[in-house]
Amino acid sequence: MIDKKTIDRAIDLMFEDVGFKEEPADLYAPLRYMIRIGGKRIRPRLCLTAYSLFRDSLDESVIQPAAALEVFHSFTLIHDDIMDKSEKRRGQPTVWTKWGDDEAILSGDVMCIEAFRRLAFAPAAVLPEVLALFTDTAASVCEGQQLDMDYEKLSDVTMDRYMEMIGLKTAVLLACSAKMGAVLAGASTENAGKLYDYGYLLGLAFQVADDYLDVYGDEKLFGKPIGGDIVNNKKSWMLTRALEKTSDRDGLRRILALPVENVEQRLSKIAAMKAVYDSLELADEAKNAIGSITADALEAVSGMQGYGALESYAFKLVGRVK
Amino acid sequence: MIDKKTIDRAIDLMFEDVGFKEEPADLYAPLRYMIRIGGKRIRPRLCLTAYSLFRDSLDESVIQPAAALEVFHSFTLIHDDIMDKSEKRRGQPTVWTKWGDDEAILSGDVMCIEAFRRLAFAPAAVLPEVLALFTDTAASVCEGQQLDMDYEKLSDVTMDRYMEMIGLKTAVLLACSAKMGAVLAGASTENAGKLYDYGYLLGLAFQVADDYLDVYGDEKLFGKPIGGDIVNNKKSWMLTRALEKTSDRDGLRRILALPVENVEQRLSKIAAMKAVYDSLELADEAKNAIGSITADALEAVSGMQGYGALESYAFKLVGRVK
Repeated sequence: MIDKKTIDRAIDLMFEDVGFKEEPADLYAPLRYMIRIGGKRIRPRLCLTAYSLFRDSLDESVIQPAAALEVFHSFTLIHDDIMDKSEKRRGQPTVWTKWGDDEAILSGDVMCIEAFRRLAFAPAAVLPEVLALFTDTAASVCEGQQLDMDYEKLSDVTMDRYMEMIGLKTAVLLACSAKMGAVLAGASTENAGKLYDYGYLLGLAFQVADDYLDVYGDEKLFGKPIGGDIVNNKKSWMLTRALEKTSDRDGLRRILALPVENVEQRLSKIAAMKAVYDSLELADEAKNAIGSITADALEAVSGMQGYGALESYAFKLVGRVK
Repeated sequence: MIDKKTIDRAIDLMFEDVGFKEEPADLYAPLRYMIRIGGKRIRPRLCLTAYSLFRDSLDESVIQPAAALEVFHSFTLIHDDIMDKSEKRRGQPTVWTKWGDDEAILSGDVMCIEAFRRLAFAPAAVLPEVLALFTDTAASVCEGQQLDMDYEKLSDVTMDRYMEMIGLKTAVLLACSAKMGAVLAGASTENAGKLYDYGYLLGLAFQVADDYLDVYGDEKLFGKPIGGDIVNNKKSWMLTRALEKTSDRDGLRRILALPVENVEQRLSKIAAMKAVYDSLELADEAKNAIGSITADALEAVSGMQGYGALESYAFKLVGRVK
């Protein structure tokens, strides 16, 4: 077992020790920028936490593949931000806003490749399995982004389709992170499978929590403006559930059709939609869903050695929802 | 030794046997499209040819990694075409023209990942080396595209810089193709190194030949309109050498500044530039350069078992220049 303090230190040093190349400057500067503005490193932390259950020390053969998960995630954000025309990310200008579309495409590409370079640090004995897991996951993440874009064109989506989409776009990468930690540690296939399920379910809970916080969160803690999903008519958990539950679909569609040209219009649309969510009592329902999926995630690994570390990780990840 | 006919058949079947996923349709259709309009499969052919020197039969452990080279190359074309705003590729509409920028970005991404998935078929014993070689190469190709974009903003580049750029953008992937065939076959480090040099030099010759054919080629054989580099003021071998050699740089710059709004203007600019190249006798010089670099490539592998196959491959690749 490796303690949390050791993992914390490894996460802090992860992108200090091993940086990116310097030249050509325009190509590599966006990579450093994205990592620098980067968030809580939840994917490498999950990988190291899973690894810590079965091993007593960390080395490059797990730290670099764990870093690959963060690098890959950052790559998807660079490209998603172009497609979604998002101008801000974690309060900072996005790469395409700062460097232009072409640079954002190319720097994203080299960041994707950089993820695979770091993956190659895995021990040779497990590299084939790690590479297969990672490539399947990476393709799924792209499929999730595709569904996200497809669903934008639909007037509404069912809860099943919503869950499928966030499963691909968010949950598989957390599932991969947890399983990869187990595989790198040489854990049994059974434990690796359980950790995959744990990561997957936790990923679903995390995304539902994110959708909840977009409406009911504290802007400072959330890190982005409240109501962004409402402004963009995003097929979030909240909207999907509201469309299922409301008896006044026409009223809901009128709110979806409201213009968002200026700040005033945006605030008024957010307020109107929030009033619907309030009247449908979605806040409690969302919190219950998050709690229940998180419980399922923990159930998947119940009795595993070092369970406490997995419980702490889960509560830290979705604990923002109170 | 594996004969050419067996390699030809493997190349023909390469993307028939193992296709791409069907769903989501918009995500995977561009991959099939790019492979279908794809050209001469020179990279997988080089990989299989190098492999054939040391082995007597082909199997998935070399065919899939060889296919990965073509898939990766196609991915770079999808993204390059967005950046370069190219509307046609091999006489067909480019992916971004057909499906839009967002689809082209995302389908390119999943195609890059697909390349790594196929690479994972390499035998476990050589997978670490193959993965390291491939990721280093892939990053270099992105660096080459970056230099290409950077150089577009410069008024001229030196021949050294031109060679560095095509080295990264074109030659490293051919070098990787040849070396990977050797590594997959379990060839000696010495032979793998020689094949790397052979592929690299051949890649340089291939790119100079491409630049030559853009001016002096037969449009039907060349597969794209003659004079594209001239219209786009591309820093080709021809232009780089002309800028070095001319005693009338101002005259050359006046041609570079000519407008290309309509067909007439484009044809007139092409004719003006071609007249300069003719007066500087660049056609012969280019052919000599191509011949000399190709000779260096063959020198790198002289005396190797199965040398004849490498010689045939080289002449087929750059033999379009007569």
